[in-house]
Amino acid sequence: MMKNTATLLVTCPDQKGIVAGIADFLYRHNANILHADQHQDAENGLFLMRVEWDLSDSAINADNFSEHFTPIAERFSMTWQLKLGQKRTRMAIMVSQYDHCLVDLLHRHQSGELACEIPLIVSNHRHTERLAEYHGIPFHYVEVNRDNKAEAEAKQFALFDQYGVDLIVLARYMQILSPAFVQRYPQRIINIHHSFLPAFIGARPYHRAFERGVKLIGATSHYVTEVLDEGPIIEQDIARISHRDQVEDLIQKGRDLERVVLSRAVRWHIENRILLYANKTVIFD
Amino acid sequence: MMKNTATLLVTCPDQKGIVAGIADFLYRHNANILHADQHQDAENGLFLMRVEWDLSDSAINADNFSEHFTPIAERFSMTWQLKLGQKRTRMAIMVSQYDHCLVDLLHRHQSGELACEIPLIVSNHRHTERLAEYHGIPFHYVEVNRDNKAEAEAKQFALFDQYGVDLIVLARYMQILSPAFVQRYPQRIINIHHSFLPAFIGARPYHRAFERGVKLIGATSHYVTEVLDEGPIIEQDIARISHRDQVEDLIQKGRDLERVVLSRAVRWHIENRILLYANKTVIFD
Amino acid sequence: MMKNTATLLVTCPDQKGIVAGIADFLYRHNANILHADQHQDAENGLFLMRVEWDLSDSAINADNFSEHFTPIAERFSMTWQLKLGQKRTRMAIMVSQYDHCLVDLLHRHQSGELACEIPLIVSNHRHTERLAEYHGIPFHYVEVNRDNKAEAEAKQFALFDQYGVDLIVLARYMQILSPAFVQRYPQRIINIHHSFLPAFIGARPYHRAFERGVKLIGATSHYVTEVLDEGPIIEQDIARISHRDQVEDLIQKGRDLERVVLSRAVRWHIENRILLYANKTVIFD
Amino acid sequence: MMKNTATLLVTCPDQKGIVAGIADFLYRHNANILHADQHQDAENGLFLMRVEWDLSDSAINADNFSEHFTPIAERFSMTWQLKLGQKRTRMAIMVSQYDHCLVDLLHRHQSGELACEIPLIVSNHRHTERLAEYHGIPFHYVEVNRDNKAEAEAKQFALFDQYGVDLIVLARYMQILSPAFVQRYPQRIINIHHSFLPAFIGARPYHRAFERGVKLIGATSHYVTEVLDEGPIIEQDIARISHRDQVEDLIQKGRDLERVVLSRAVRWHIENRILLYANKTVIFD
Repeated sequence: MMKNTATLLVTCPDQKGIVAGIADFLYRHNANILHADQHQDAENGLFLMRVEWDLSDSAINADNFSEHFTPIAERFSMTWQLKLGQKRTRMAIMVSQYDHCLVDLLHRHQSGELACEIPLIVSNHRHTERLAEYHGIPFHYVEVNRDNKAEAEAKQFALFDQYGVDLIVLARYMQILSPAFVQRYPQRIINIHHSFLPAFIGARPYHRAFERGVKLIGATSHYVTEVLDEGPIIEQDIARISHRDQVEDLIQKGRDLERVVLSRAVRWHIENRILLYANKTVIFD
Repeated sequence: MMKNTATLLVTCPDQKGIVAGIADFLYRHNANILHADQHQDAENGLFLMRVEWDLSDSAINADNFSEHFTPIAERFSMTWQLKLGQKRTRMAIMVSQYDHCLVDLLHRHQSGELACEIPLIVSNHRHTERLAEYHGIPFHYVEVNRDNKAEAEAKQFALFDQYGVDLIVLARYMQILSPAFVQRYPQRIINIHHSFLPAFIGARPYHRAFERGVKLIGATSHYVTEVLDEGPIIEQDIARISHRDQVEDLIQKGRDLERVVLSRAVRWHIENRILLYANKTVIFD
Repeated sequence: MMKNTATLLVTCPDQKGIVAGIADFLYRHNANILHADQHQDAENGLFLMRVEWDLSDSAINADNFSEHFTPIAERFSMTWQLKLGQKRTRMAIMVSQYDHCLVDLLHRHQSGELACEIPLIVSNHRHTERLAEYHGIPFHYVEVNRDNKAEAEAKQFALFDQYGVDLIVLARYMQILSPAFVQRYPQRIINIHHSFLPAFIGARPYHRAFERGVKLIGATSHYVTEVLDEGPIIEQDIARISHRDQVEDLIQKGRDLERVVLSRAVRWHIENRILLYANKTVIFD
Repeated sequence: MMKNTATLLVTCPDQKGIVAGIADFLYRHNANILHADQHQDAENGLFLMRVEWDLSDSAINADNFSEHFTPIAERFSMTWQLKLGQKRTRMAIMVSQYDHCLVDLLHRHQSGELACEIPLIVSNHRHTERLAEYHGIPFHYVEVNRDNKAEAEAKQFALFDQYGVDLIVLARYMQILSPAFVQRYPQRIINIHHSFLPAFIGARPYHRAFERGVKLIGATSHYVTEVLDEGPIIEQDIARISHRDQVEDLIQKGRDLERVVLSRAVRWHIENRILLYANKTVIFD
């Protein structure tokens, strides 16, 4: 599980010689490429790449990578990020009453499917405290009400700092985050919205889907930005419904969607498979 | 193919005894029930039913059904419609440049999958005339431009009258119908919209889906009402896309969706499987 | 959740008057029908029906139903079974090492989605004991090895008797049941098989799917009969895979399928929605 | 449509430096890479790659590619094939009575979705002759009966030679090809089988699916090898069915599957996206 590999994500203006440059760099440093995937966006003139290699035989490592790679990055005007398999993402989960996504994430973590740390769970309800305890994960209740939002978020920030969090997953956390919160964690907050965005932005999407008489319901995981439900979409899926389904049936069928869609987004994030541009995601799966 | 059956659709306030009333009526008239399906909408207190029976042994027929059934219909305040398997729907197809839905409908008709008549094809382009000829179906070109809309629709109405049309299918017909058109054919016009409604209402949905960065595209068939893309949804389906797909790929993948989604809606309509209420459809499949 | 309703499942030779007979019976006894669904198998000349009604206003109840209904049942040569909403199915779960289906069933039970009792969990491993304890469900370890199969099953039978079990769910229980076990619980044992049956009957289906190079993997829930993986299929679903997926990826993607497919089968069974004939299931959903 | 690009498919033992070698080669020859995709099979120690580049600026072309590339190919023990966008695949379609796949392929060809030539259609029935004529494609009737199989195939070979065919698509061609036929066109014959292989190998798969009571039906496109229905799978898809569906409904729903699944396989083949090894396909889409 603790793979001794490195993953590099690269974005730069498209031009000839990029692949040759990167491949040659890795070859010179004796890196065994395990996976490589690239994408060219012709319209925007962009080149995007993910490459994963085995660190065990290679002379480059986390400490000296930047020094060695900088000449190539500068030559092609790259922005890049390196992630080591052995340095696991530290993911905080925020949750309200509905616990199905939380149960799912914790089980996938336990089974080894999600190779991350979960240092804490934060909730505005006490409902899931026992579950956190069962999994041996610190649980922090932070009350949120009409009047204490800034104060509550300050407590949450302190917790995230204390636990060294680098990803925040909103597993059906039903409070809207302040702009300050969102700006503090750019591209670090993943939400699950219980509709097929951009349909039914905002509150009570299952009720509105029922009223509109749609034949499919959806769920969408996305990065949180300052505009509600407008962040880059990571994953979506749908389920078929019929006239026999009442709102409660939509909610129940939707739970299965939400679980799966959120867990995929989390997995791709922690495996360094997501690149962002133009408010969209490139998923290197 | 020409089945000697009758199909009855019934809507009425929910109350005890409805099923017993209908079933007893059919039994007394020696009707062999082939299919029966019903739905109760508890919230709206509605009962809806579809029942199909064999006419061959029965003393009731198209001519005397109303007389015999009226007492029951009045007792339960029913609205109802009867359709005979041998009286096929006469379906006009309207189309513009894109011919994939037309090709599909014509092939399904030819193979016997769509048990209807197609007395004519109306288009504002000459592009599909040869195809219509291949299938032996009258083709009528009606030019539509900025200035002649009312006149063009008058020509279309005359054609529909002349050919005895009772269903109009917009198989990627790219003109917006006037309110007068829509009112003339209530619940008789089926459209295919190339998005997952209510996402991307209006023009250029694939372009907008591409810009938003969705991970699934959709298609929606619906009855046309006076508010654009707001009519009762009959069927929807989706296809998965990725960052590798450009707008043209969305359009191409969408064609497969549009074909299938429109053909299902048409089939359910001509088989008398659709009941409407509260701007929604009940599909008795 | 504890609905005061009754559900009747009926199978009989198809003939005129059955629906009228049942509907009239319920109407005479003042039963308010909530749902009714029927199916005719023309080829086999069979009529099958599920009807659910509200018990609160009705003079018929669990005690006197049989007496009142017998004349109708005899007239049409019906086999029938009645289930009361308030009398919940008592479901034993058997499990081995893999706990994902168990976790899923327990969470659905806890959230109210599965309206049954789970009086005990039986396992040939101690791995899930703590989970059972967390949910407050008695856990019984019954060792199974090459030599003690009959003895182990005798212990299991005693447990099922003791806890009054009327459904046994094999949630990735990796032991093959003896014919005696299967015969003791006809149509009372539901298994999840990790392939799209009838492809890959037997052991190691993911490995064989990988070797064959299929593009989709599946899962199948079915009633257990004496012939391995040949019992009536209740539900199936699939997931797309690609050449990038190794056997471990198939196993991981398959877990999501197994969970959902098994939980649907269990739900339909406990809601009395399944009729069996000709080694097939009719699902009245 | 007639893109001035080249596509290279490469297979070789996995080792360090392959990507660097190929990327450097293309860079030195001033090729602008449009798409590149690669796959490593760790278990088999194989490296597989597809790379597509723009020919317009480059000094390498179809005539001198082999000369220039051979040193690299030899260094890494590569097997490779080059395909030029301007040299379209010449695809023969073989068909029997059922014309839905043929109609679909011809429409996709006409709309530009399938960038190939269709020099002829061969059939053992005269049924589709008029359709071929409508599309302006030569139609050849070759009678096949119990006694003339070798003779019929000899006629077919002569036709394929005459028309310079390099791909044969069996669009519901209901005759089993002889081993000699299969050997003559290795990895050049694509079939559509109307089941989810390996379930229901052989004849009448929909009937057998109906008898087994499956809840999903499937279709599979594959390369034809000497063992019936055992060739490398290119694509599969499924559709949901229920107890309401009779065999004819399975056949009708299956037609939509067959069309789509076959057309994807054909498209990937003519776009040089398929690599074969270990009786499996790698699809570089």
